Amino acid sequence: MKKAVVLLSGGLDSATVLAIARDQGFQCYALSVDYGQRHRSELDAAKKVAHSLGADRHQIIKLDLSTFGGSALTDQTMDVPTSGDSAGIPATYVPARNTIMLALALAWAETLQSQDIFAGVNAVDYSGYPDCRPEYIQAFEQMANLATKAAIEGKKLTIHTPLMHLPKKEIIQTGLALDVDYSLTVSCYQADEAGQACGICDSCRIRTAGFEAAGVADPARYRSSIEA
Amino acid sequence: MKKAVVLLSGGLDSATVLAIARDQGFQCYALSVDYGQRHRSELDAAKKVAHSLGADRHQIIKLDLSTFGGSALTDQTMDVPTSGDSAGIPATYVPARNTIMLALALAWAETLQSQDIFAGVNAVDYSGYPDCRPEYIQAFEQMANLATKAAIEGKKLTIHTPLMHLPKKEIIQTGLALDVDYSLTVSCYQADEAGQACGICDSCRIRTAGFEAAGVADPARYRSSIEA
Repeated sequence: MKKAVVLLSGGLDSATVLAIARDQGFQCYALSVDYGQRHRSELDAAKKVAHSLGADRHQIIKLDLSTFGGSALTDQTMDVPTSGDSAGIPATYVPARNTIMLALALAWAETLQSQDIFAGVNAVDYSGYPDCRPEYIQAFEQMANLATKAAIEGKKLTIHTPLMHLPKKEIIQTGLALDVDYSLTVSCYQADEAGQACGICDSCRIRTAGFEAAGVADPARYRSSIEA
Repeated sequence: MKKAVVLLSGGLDSATVLAIARDQGFQCYALSVDYGQRHRSELDAAKKVAHSLGADRHQIIKLDLSTFGGSALTDQTMDVPTSGDSAGIPATYVPARNTIMLALALAWAETLQSQDIFAGVNAVDYSGYPDCRPEYIQAFEQMANLATKAAIEGKKLTIHTPLMHLPKKEIIQTGLALDVDYSLTVSCYQADEAGQACGICDSCRIRTAGFEAAGVADPARYRSSIEA
């Protein structure tokens, strides 16, 4: 069985990606990053998701990105936007987050002698982040194939982003067909310790709209309704 | 004054790079990564170097790469090669290290609104690491310019590697001309807690040969001679 490193946030998208990677026959090494995010219950969710979807191993690596600041997700003094107004790149953008996470996945992939990394990057229902675009992923893959001992030895690395062009509705349908238990996932940017979602941040809005479009009940636990 | 993020390991090369960045008029934000390296005295050296060369700020970010293993620099059960035999990529290679460090520098640069990153990467007297080659740095820069909010807004990021094509001798001469105090730097892969070098690992060998070629005494403290 081929090994793959799967970036697992604990959210809906990466859970779906893990299910896809397993379905494609990969032995999955799930990697979560404890980067000082305010929605830390997402890490508990990641553990449950990794176990429920049969990851061979799950590693949480700690890296305190709040050192650098600059994001509402790591800086407790900044507010998470809840207005639903989606113009421009929002305050929840974490500088270089995907670059850092993919770099960590690359390091683990190399030590595992794996040539496959899976990431739940999506360019449709995303929040306007630059590092979620296909041209960015292509550039990362190109760089990665110059970066490693494995690459020099001719073992090409592939970054799989199976959700890139799927609307949230189809992501959910794909996951349900692969038996993903979405009640285990946490999407909210400001989930409480128990994993209860706010219902009004961008991530909650995208999630609930996705479940609505899929015609399926969202099993997430909300501490206030979306109308609140 | 323009701001630059300077990757600072505590070794000879990155100290020289910090001096060059300062000399070019940059306000310098030095970044060191505590990645679980066995030569931890290099982090103390980095602090001293940052202070002595007038960095505006010095940040040490912790990231335990020993989680992934695969390198003699982070895995205490692997031996650091000391034979001087330089065929192939040595056991001291840390998977994806430069990719991770540049990614962290990119994150800090973005929050500082800096468009300049300096790194002491060198393709001449290096130890055969794939992520020290000019084509790798170019690919990283290209990726970085698709990764960030700043890049989307048209602010181009440059990765400066002023040592790329310099032999160690010239690096040392450049640094001395800029008043770098090399007695503060630690190059050894297995320096002890006091910063004393082994004298026989690849990094020590390259350093001592460089000082010899420059016709200058190496101010490093060695716990055994190179002939030992």
